[in-house]
Amino acid sequence: MSETGEAGPARLEAWRERVEGCLAGWMDALAARPGCPPDLAEAMRYALLGGGKRLRPLLAMAAAEATGAEPGLALEAGCALELVHAYSLVHDDLPAMDDDDLRRGQPTCHRRFGEALAILAGDGLLSLAFEALARAFPDERAARAVGLLAAAAGPAGMVGGQADDVRPWDGRALPLAEVESIHLRKTACLLVAALELGALAARAGEPALLALGRAGRALGLAFQVADDVLSFTGDEASLGRPTTSDQARLRRLHPLLAGLPASRARGQALLAEARAALLPFGERAQALLSIVDRVQARLGA
Amino acid sequence: MSETGEAGPARLEAWRERVEGCLAGWMDALAARPGCPPDLAEAMRYALLGGGKRLRPLLAMAAAEATGAEPGLALEAGCALELVHAYSLVHDDLPAMDDDDLRRGQPTCHRRFGEALAILAGDGLLSLAFEALARAFPDERAARAVGLLAAAAGPAGMVGGQADDVRPWDGRALPLAEVESIHLRKTACLLVAALELGALAARAGEPALLALGRAGRALGLAFQVADDVLSFTGDEASLGRPTTSDQARLRRLHPLLAGLPASRARGQALLAEARAALLPFGERAQALLSIVDRVQARLGA
Repeated sequence: MSETGEAGPARLEAWRERVEGCLAGWMDALAARPGCPPDLAEAMRYALLGGGKRLRPLLAMAAAEATGAEPGLALEAGCALELVHAYSLVHDDLPAMDDDDLRRGQPTCHRRFGEALAILAGDGLLSLAFEALARAFPDERAARAVGLLAAAAGPAGMVGGQADDVRPWDGRALPLAEVESIHLRKTACLLVAALELGALAARAGEPALLALGRAGRALGLAFQVADDVLSFTGDEASLGRPTTSDQARLRRLHPLLAGLPASRARGQALLAEARAALLPFGERAQALLSIVDRVQARLGA
Repeated sequence: MSETGEAGPARLEAWRERVEGCLAGWMDALAARPGCPPDLAEAMRYALLGGGKRLRPLLAMAAAEATGAEPGLALEAGCALELVHAYSLVHDDLPAMDDDDLRRGQPTCHRRFGEALAILAGDGLLSLAFEALARAFPDERAARAVGLLAAAAGPAGMVGGQADDVRPWDGRALPLAEVESIHLRKTACLLVAALELGALAARAGEPALLALGRAGRALGLAFQVADDVLSFTGDEASLGRPTTSDQARLRRLHPLLAGLPASRARGQALLAEARAALLPFGERAQALLSIVDRVQARLGA
């Protein structure tokens, strides 16, 4: 495992390229599939391949490696999670939700393809995610894998967090506990699923799944705190998204509710929690730890 | 199997009540789930429990019976399909798609709960469907079951059919082959999945799955032809939906393109195809045949 040390960032970049290749391959296969309308395939490709950190697949691969397996074992499961992430962004950007015109500096899916096709592209990505996941676990693990992803993405997970997030504002500042509950469901649930599915792909035991799930929960919450800190301190250009949408989010911006120092402290505590949960994996958790470091850097502390 | 003859309709009604009970139970469990916002749970319940023929669960149960198994074995798999059906109706009704105000005589989900919550209720129902399906097949069959449903519901199936259906009209009448291709993906794919998943729940062999899939394809196409015939000959009250939406569908109304007698003949031919595919199952296919009879009655021929 000597190459996991200094070469960490380069390895993650190599993994990210494998992820891009896998996702592009899936979109090519989709476009060639009889019955899939060309414009729908194009809208899905646009939503999926427009860049992005690919955090969820990287986490899945890093989790597989942490349990002693070849990271590539978790590539397809991780890419299935990326389809879910892409679908959620398309639907979140819709006029009825956040009404965003830009995503990563490009027109959002509905601005480019129209609202109907954007809704359907999101729907299509979600179905395709489960199809890909079933293919990634073609054995007795499929039921558990699908159950994990569905719970993380569903009404008590990501969709539930988004429902609480788009609810019309009554003007009062949200309690911090409520903000973290939204963060937990909107973001952390899917990161937990990434780590658990990566471990499941590696056929790791239950204690490993539990520990990785804990790390994912803390990392996911820290990620959102860092995102809020960036929204608070950063500028539009560096985030690639308009400030207008963030204005509507003021009610739940962590630093505005807790104060910038307290937000950074909370982020630090969560990252410490994630690192502690990864301790049992020793050297093998290097890739995961370098992802923790990235969130640390976003936190700017 | 003597009770399957004359008592057919009563048996199907008893099955339908089991389906309602299962779906209501799922919605109760959802509302009690930590993290699921009450209004989201309510919107999902509203979309799911507002009536309906429950055709897909009935088909799954009837398919299980056709292969010699207890129909209840396919109850949960069938109900998972009903969640997919309910999600598709919520999204199809949205302003960006069919823009319908009424569904079965009641306000559509977005008219009742707002557009954001309706989009999320649909998203939630789709995730929940895969969760339920994974629970219905907690063994080595899960991967196949999930793959079947995802393909039927996804971009080369139902979502693809809807994308072709909402595309802005260039004024020309669609060729009949294109209309049937939309029918196939928008409706028949999910009926095929219902029959195949019912057979899978019953652990039927491959020849049974193949034959049932063929029957489902013909039945699904006939169902849509019958629906179009009803839209052409029926009135708003009897259909429980506004004629305005049907106006926008004129371009693909089967009887308008083929003529009413030819549409009825096509429907008849498809139903004969479905019956032929069911022949090998003999008496055990009684419930399936009585569903075929219902479509026949809708066809009014």
